[in-house]
Amino acid sequence: MTANLKNIETVSPFRILATSPGTKARRAVLYTKHGAINTPVFMPVATQATVKALSYEDLENAGAECLLSNTYHLYLRPGTETLEKLGGLHKFMHWNRSILTDSGGFQVFSLAHLRDISEDGVKFRSHHDGSSHLFTPENVIGFESQIGSDIWTCLDICVKNPATHADAAKALKTTQRWAERALKAYFSKVKEQDIHRHRDGSFTVGHSIQFGIVQGSTYADLRAEAAKHLAELPFHGYCIGGLAVGEEKPAMLSSVEHAVEHLPEHKPRYFMGLGTPEDLWECVDRGVDMFDCVWPTRTARNGNIMTSRGRINIKNAEYTLSEEVLDPECDCPTCKIYSKAYLRHLFRANELLSHRLLSIHNVRFLIRQMETIRAAIEKGTFAEEKKTFLEKYMQTRKRH
Amino acid sequence: MTANLKNIETVSPFRILATSPGTKARRAVLYTKHGAINTPVFMPVATQATVKALSYEDLENAGAECLLSNTYHLYLRPGTETLEKLGGLHKFMHWNRSILTDSGGFQVFSLAHLRDISEDGVKFRSHHDGSSHLFTPENVIGFESQIGSDIWTCLDICVKNPATHADAAKALKTTQRWAERALKAYFSKVKEQDIHRHRDGSFTVGHSIQFGIVQGSTYADLRAEAAKHLAELPFHGYCIGGLAVGEEKPAMLSSVEHAVEHLPEHKPRYFMGLGTPEDLWECVDRGVDMFDCVWPTRTARNGNIMTSRGRINIKNAEYTLSEEVLDPECDCPTCKIYSKAYLRHLFRANELLSHRLLSIHNVRFLIRQMETIRAAIEKGTFAEEKKTFLEKYMQTRKRH
Repeated sequence: MTANLKNIETVSPFRILATSPGTKARRAVLYTKHGAINTPVFMPVATQATVKALSYEDLENAGAECLLSNTYHLYLRPGTETLEKLGGLHKFMHWNRSILTDSGGFQVFSLAHLRDISEDGVKFRSHHDGSSHLFTPENVIGFESQIGSDIWTCLDICVKNPATHADAAKALKTTQRWAERALKAYFSKVKEQDIHRHRDGSFTVGHSIQFGIVQGSTYADLRAEAAKHLAELPFHGYCIGGLAVGEEKPAMLSSVEHAVEHLPEHKPRYFMGLGTPEDLWECVDRGVDMFDCVWPTRTARNGNIMTSRGRINIKNAEYTLSEEVLDPECDCPTCKIYSKAYLRHLFRANELLSHRLLSIHNVRFLIRQMETIRAAIEKGTFAEEKKTFLEKYMQTRKRH
Repeated sequence: MTANLKNIETVSPFRILATSPGTKARRAVLYTKHGAINTPVFMPVATQATVKALSYEDLENAGAECLLSNTYHLYLRPGTETLEKLGGLHKFMHWNRSILTDSGGFQVFSLAHLRDISEDGVKFRSHHDGSSHLFTPENVIGFESQIGSDIWTCLDICVKNPATHADAAKALKTTQRWAERALKAYFSKVKEQDIHRHRDGSFTVGHSIQFGIVQGSTYADLRAEAAKHLAELPFHGYCIGGLAVGEEKPAMLSSVEHAVEHLPEHKPRYFMGLGTPEDLWECVDRGVDMFDCVWPTRTARNGNIMTSRGRINIKNAEYTLSEEVLDPECDCPTCKIYSKAYLRHLFRANELLSHRLLSIHNVRFLIRQMETIRAAIEKGTFAEEKKTFLEKYMQTRKRH
């Protein structure tokens, strides 16, 4: 099977514009059927066809160019068949920029009940109503096609860290076979490739593109093996999965390094489920181009706010009379208008507006950080700016 | 005490522009220190310094010209002293149009624990933490002054219907004495009246204005007595309180009639806590100018939607694949963009965005209805248009 797939030539609609000395950071553009995504990029998570508490205008204003949505959640509710009948997820949620869908693998292993993995796929019971379902590499591609997302990913097995080498290796072998089956399913949907590179380096993309997922837990040999295997296959990009799921930070970062080392230079790399400012700088440094995480919105709903001087919690009594904004360096609508005193009041009063205003800020904070990162790579000053950012952000964090 | 108050001459900054034959409906403008309020008006309720799930832009876009906020809630959290230090409620919540505050009376009698009424005022325990507090006619005026609202109301006793004549009469007597004390407290704050009528009939208002509250349960004699008493006092307008709290619809409407009959023609009348479309038409017909209610936003959070063809519940399975908007006749941002299928999905998925999008619609629906009512009075066709509206709205309601 691999032999056939290896013969397919794919063009990755990814254009590298700049790199920064002494790092693996790349400033690039990924093109999809919905347009350009400037990378490194942070993608807010629209779990159930909405980023929690935010409207499409909030996300456009924040500068989001791509959202992540969860195949597992959409499959269960409203149903991918329903989404297809309604013209796909973009139309459904009124979002005209890019959408990446995960494969459902992560949720099946973290949310669903009674998982039963076989060579065919994974049987599970819905966390809503206990109903029985089967995900296979092939039907997941079908669901992503019904959703109509721009970037599809393959069904994989995500083991929880720490995992034994034997367990991680076994899961990886299955993930590898599933990746090949997913690719075949992809090319049975996308029979004729319609990706064109223009003279200026930009691309026109006529269909959804497909990313493989590097697994292998925190084992250097497995990450290398996984990356090498996928690198030979005609994916348009690569996810790094199974990290930020329980392992220590050094193990996470070295796993990224082992994966990136064996992935092709000219295709995008996406770290699934990472979203703290410090982690994004570290992983861009190591050659990662794309990120997503529910963290900035989830933590906002708990009153935790990222600022250029570190994290704060809005419920602190010290803000009772504060007429300051969350972050004077921020350009988000919340920081243009609202005092910490008002935001603290809304949070304590459990008002719905609190969730929206704080989420607007946290999402914009991360997207603005990616703008800073992109500009730094363009100027060739990424390494210095990373140091400056982390010193300011982490130092004040200790203070609190 | 009454004699002194009777000698004060007040100008009510209220300008009647039109009336409609065969009804008591008036099209008017009430001026406050924050500008003009076109009446009949519906005021969304910003219970805790925010209309639940909505931002100030949502409310401006909906055409809200005045909000109601609750003195009881603001007094307990964030505290009226805190509000004063932060420059008042308008600045705190970023709202530059008018705000009316209720007196806290209604909440003390519906929310607080261990109420103890004396001639002095009412002692109660906070529903948050059980802490002990005292509201008096005088300190409530002080709290409203700290809040900085445009229209202040007097501490009153709101009896639950049905009430015995004796209980209602007793409560009314106290309410009457408290009204006089509140007026005295008002004139000790507003020493020099600064309300000027211009040649074109408009007003400039330099300070907050003060409304009395007509009580008397559903007893015609008590309502008449209450209205006559207040009519002789130099209030700028009159609330009709203690209705829509358990009585039958005919009793509610006749109580309004008995109150309005004895209130001065040239001052505004405000029915506290009424918000269904059919009730608004009926009460405008009977000469009421102002309304507030949490119902449109609360019911939105339960998925109940007002449309020009009656009420619907968005969770109905019939909307699973509906690409229609909530109400094709509505001009709200939700109806410009989102399908019933998407809104149903958000509601079922318990997404925060659902509360905002449905509240935007319901609030705009009522405000647009008031625009229709005002235009009808101007054209002199209120009676006919009321009939047309109710037939369309109530008929389809039966269908569901």
